Amino acid sequence: MPKKVPPGYNGKILRVNLTDGTTTAEALDELFCRRYIGGAGFVIYYLWKELKPGIDPLSPDNKLVFALGPVSGLQVPGSARNCVGTKSALTGSIAKAEAGGFWPSEFKRSGYDAIIVEGKADKPVYLWIQDGEASIRDARHLWGMETKETEAAVRAELGDNRIQLALIGPGGENMVRYACIMNGLHDAAARGGPGAIMGSKNLKAIAVRGHKMPKIADNERLKAIRQQIMSRPLMPWLSEFGTGGFDMADLEVAGNLPVRNFRDGLFPEVQQIHGGVIKDTIRLGMEGCFACPVRCKKVVGFKEPYPVDPAYGGPEYETLAAVGSNCGVTNLKAIVKANERCGAYSLDTISTGGTIAFAMECFEKGLLTTKDTDGIDLRFGNDEAMLKVIDLIAQRQGIGNLLAEGSARLAKKIGKGSEAFAIQVKGLEAGMHDPRVSGGLGLGYMVNFHGADHCAAVFDMMFLAGPAISNLHHLGIYEPISADELSPRKVGIARSVMLKKVVDDCSVVCAFFEYTLDRQAELIAAATGWETGPVDLMKVAERITNIGRLFNIREGFTAANDVLPERFFQPKTDGVLANKSVNQTDAEKAKAYYYRLMGWDDKGVPLPEKIAELGIE
Amino acid sequence: MPKKVPPGYNGKILRVNLTDGTTTAEALDELFCRRYIGGAGFVIYYLWKELKPGIDPLSPDNKLVFALGPVSGLQVPGSARNCVGTKSALTGSIAKAEAGGFWPSEFKRSGYDAIIVEGKADKPVYLWIQDGEASIRDARHLWGMETKETEAAVRAELGDNRIQLALIGPGGENMVRYACIMNGLHDAAARGGPGAIMGSKNLKAIAVRGHKMPKIADNERLKAIRQQIMSRPLMPWLSEFGTGGFDMADLEVAGNLPVRNFRDGLFPEVQQIHGGVIKDTIRLGMEGCFACPVRCKKVVGFKEPYPVDPAYGGPEYETLAAVGSNCGVTNLKAIVKANERCGAYSLDTISTGGTIAFAMECFEKGLLTTKDTDGIDLRFGNDEAMLKVIDLIAQRQGIGNLLAEGSARLAKKIGKGSEAFAIQVKGLEAGMHDPRVSGGLGLGYMVNFHGADHCAAVFDMMFLAGPAISNLHHLGIYEPISADELSPRKVGIARSVMLKKVVDDCSVVCAFFEYTLDRQAELIAAATGWETGPVDLMKVAERITNIGRLFNIREGFTAANDVLPERFFQPKTDGVLANKSVNQTDAEKAKAYYYRLMGWDDKGVPLPEKIAELGIE
Repeated sequence: MPKKVPPGYNGKILRVNLTDGTTTAEALDELFCRRYIGGAGFVIYYLWKELKPGIDPLSPDNKLVFALGPVSGLQVPGSARNCVGTKSALTGSIAKAEAGGFWPSEFKRSGYDAIIVEGKADKPVYLWIQDGEASIRDARHLWGMETKETEAAVRAELGDNRIQLALIGPGGENMVRYACIMNGLHDAAARGGPGAIMGSKNLKAIAVRGHKMPKIADNERLKAIRQQIMSRPLMPWLSEFGTGGFDMADLEVAGNLPVRNFRDGLFPEVQQIHGGVIKDTIRLGMEGCFACPVRCKKVVGFKEPYPVDPAYGGPEYETLAAVGSNCGVTNLKAIVKANERCGAYSLDTISTGGTIAFAMECFEKGLLTTKDTDGIDLRFGNDEAMLKVIDLIAQRQGIGNLLAEGSARLAKKIGKGSEAFAIQVKGLEAGMHDPRVSGGLGLGYMVNFHGADHCAAVFDMMFLAGPAISNLHHLGIYEPISADELSPRKVGIARSVMLKKVVDDCSVVCAFFEYTLDRQAELIAAATGWETGPVDLMKVAERITNIGRLFNIREGFTAANDVLPERFFQPKTDGVLANKSVNQTDAEKAKAYYYRLMGWDDKGVPLPEKIAELGIE
Repeated sequence: MPKKVPPGYNGKILRVNLTDGTTTAEALDELFCRRYIGGAGFVIYYLWKELKPGIDPLSPDNKLVFALGPVSGLQVPGSARNCVGTKSALTGSIAKAEAGGFWPSEFKRSGYDAIIVEGKADKPVYLWIQDGEASIRDARHLWGMETKETEAAVRAELGDNRIQLALIGPGGENMVRYACIMNGLHDAAARGGPGAIMGSKNLKAIAVRGHKMPKIADNERLKAIRQQIMSRPLMPWLSEFGTGGFDMADLEVAGNLPVRNFRDGLFPEVQQIHGGVIKDTIRLGMEGCFACPVRCKKVVGFKEPYPVDPAYGGPEYETLAAVGSNCGVTNLKAIVKANERCGAYSLDTISTGGTIAFAMECFEKGLLTTKDTDGIDLRFGNDEAMLKVIDLIAQRQGIGNLLAEGSARLAKKIGKGSEAFAIQVKGLEAGMHDPRVSGGLGLGYMVNFHGADHCAAVFDMMFLAGPAISNLHHLGIYEPISADELSPRKVGIARSVMLKKVVDDCSVVCAFFEYTLDRQAELIAAATGWETGPVDLMKVAERITNIGRLFNIREGFTAANDVLPERFFQPKTDGVLANKSVNQTDAEKAKAYYYRLMGWDDKGVPLPEKIAELGIE
């Protein structure tokens, strides 16, 4: 493999075939790196090229791809991330998710840029990668363990406490369709359920330890970017509260807080569950990811009424809303416990909360009864029920086995019009942000190839700030634009911002820093020595977005799958959205114009010219 | 006018009504500045908003807009430029042209960012602007003078040798449809003939003198950009030869040199007329524009067989080809003389040469005879005839009066199939680059709203370099792409590069520097203090390109005007292009895909959504 390794990369991917137990290093080609950069780019490319159409996501035919970008693991804030992707058992489309922590930076030092896991082990195994050496090890003794026990056991048996793990708990093992992969105990690559695929392959964990960073093209330039980024106030509110601080109450006021399955508006009890309350009561401290000075991660623990292990960190905003307000739950400690359980079991808290909230509404409507729920009184606000159901989901027991399928499958099974209030797109439960106040977000929910993932489309939450748009001038926004607007102007902005987010996910960097498109170019140039720029990077993002689209089309998806759940076209029962909903005509027009801007035909199929332009093969 | 003036701008435009003799200062609005930046943006906006549809370009209803950008006149290389535009009497579309020299930087210090000239003076006048004071002065004594005499006379009567003039000679006065406006004696804002409009308004010159630069937001940042730009080799070949050095011979080899009205390929006499020969024989030195260390402008002079005044500088590549090879002229001194005459008369050398070449081919074909030409033997290669005809054009005498109308009108008058070899698009004679070897250039010729202007579309000349594409990585080009290719991939690149060129023309900076899109954002940010970026700037460029398009549509232009002259679909008579031409199907497909990428319908009309997205009113 005498190919030239570009700086910023290890230059190798590790292919792991669990069926025959082989591990093979493959050289990365520089041209390929330029065309896909890394992270989400690598993930989407390999899934597109290597997965046969129509495979069962839970079969050995599926693959799981972990990828770093050239910026992953560098000494700049926000670089602590990797992307992981697969064909989702929840959606049937690509799942892609990013996570931080310390696994990606450790993996970066272990000699590889990506791992492609294929096949299925005949018994539980884990993968162990140390300084370029990869081995597949028996994990039968680990199977069934929660994530914390697993981490401790692997570190103990390998005799190194600094080993980092990407791993699953019982949720993944039991192939809960929205099981996540945990990077350590705090950070989840969650959306679309890549943990279920890991479980289907009998792969318990990927343990990494490395000591050698790949060469960086221009360390001085990297240092200058770091200083530039650090010279701005680093989001003091994030350092103080993490996500979901006092501003969570503002979300309720604005109508943006999901309350009881996105049905209701008012939720005064938000005052009992936000990050400000956490800080003042049960919080033990804050932690951060590798190389990050913000430290936005809550550490929360207590003993009563049930013990919560601080090792799992505290709930992010998404979790506070998903298993809190969206389930009508007002008991903060129950939310924190649910967060701990999801970390221990490796469950996506958004899909977990979204599915439970849907089930609760079905229960209230009589579409599910205590006969279905093993006697659990699954009404909104019942925090004991919520916690109990999470245990059952992870174990796929009783009602939990049903809920482990996700809200779309559950709705299909229940029928009777319940699909209208299953809050999902393409099978992926929506993030905890409401398209009724956030038009660009709604468009993103519709068109993302991985479903209603707010990470790809949360941008126009910024517009809720109203006149404070001075930091959006780099997008060509000089005049106020309302968050709920779904005009051609918003579509144009949305397209740019969504493409830019793909660049972030290739790089791979955290969305919480001011890595504008220019800075991304600088960052990637500093790492790789490439003369890159915004035109190049946006073209890469277009390439990846189109491949994601083509993957879905190959799997049978059509424009009919690019739709919001009916609930968003209806007003909330109360609060500021009592007379307001997404306008269906606006949404259809926005979708059509987005297709147009992307170079897709009226049905959302990329034009042959666009495919040729981007050099997609 | 208590509006906030953004740094980098004077914050005022000067409106000059020549009919009633008034001059008025109008405040610039910051929002407007953000949306249009300056230069070409201001020019296109005002013409779109203020010109009534269907006006006669040579009537008092027309307007002439001169505009600087925030970077014009700053202490960075390449900043010495302004844009000027009007409704062209040659094309009926917008004419826009940029020029350098010392007029723009002096104008920048005179208190204004733009001048809108409207109406018509009842006798020849010139405009005099000094440190914010504007006056309209009698120019009857200047009328008929060549540019050099005019410059000297105005400087003398105003008593200041550092006064800079934008001015016309007899070509502009006589409303030759392709008369240029000279910035001093070297630099021409030429394409589309803005000098004719200046002449139609009885406006001989705009003399400027100023002492006060507007405040710049961040001088340190500007200095850093300057150092960055200067740290790279500043195109040593340009400093040594100017444009059209030894590489002009390479153009012939590549088939890219226009020979006898773009008809022939071989022209071994190129060895007698290129910039290398000039350097070794008749060159007196090199000069440069304001703040520019490259000094790419030849100074050429001699006494025999006719005197050439070195004050007018020497011919650029475009001129060497236009009145040289494209007219079959092999006599270097005649070319230099023609260049001097065009500067003295204020004629666009490209349209002058293009029109003469067309007439020469008509003459050879018998479509024009000595009866039409006042006895002039107007065959290819007759340098005496070429020079004689230039004098007649400027004076609109005899055959010159016919040729002063440009090749499109001449072809229409002659008929008999001559339109097929009138090398123009929308009436604008093509730049001296051949679409048969340069596909993206051909697309630009087709779709530019100002006609076959290579300045907007010369980019893929770069691809002629072949494998040396490392400096194109910032465009997402990693694999060789041939210059003649007209694929969707090329269309995508072409669109980006053409939009980026619009940014240059707003800024306003010279295309000869490495002001990539990111650097432009930095440059504009340093000047204005704005948080701008590539997404913002590309949106501005889209806005301006769409307005140009809408202006043309309002004037009756359709997709049928976006076509190359027939000659480019035919091979050359000899040389490497003897079996090669533009493929008409490819060209139509490329045009259609360009429309698609621009958000235009199949007929090239901007979609209502695109107009709304860009906020065009």
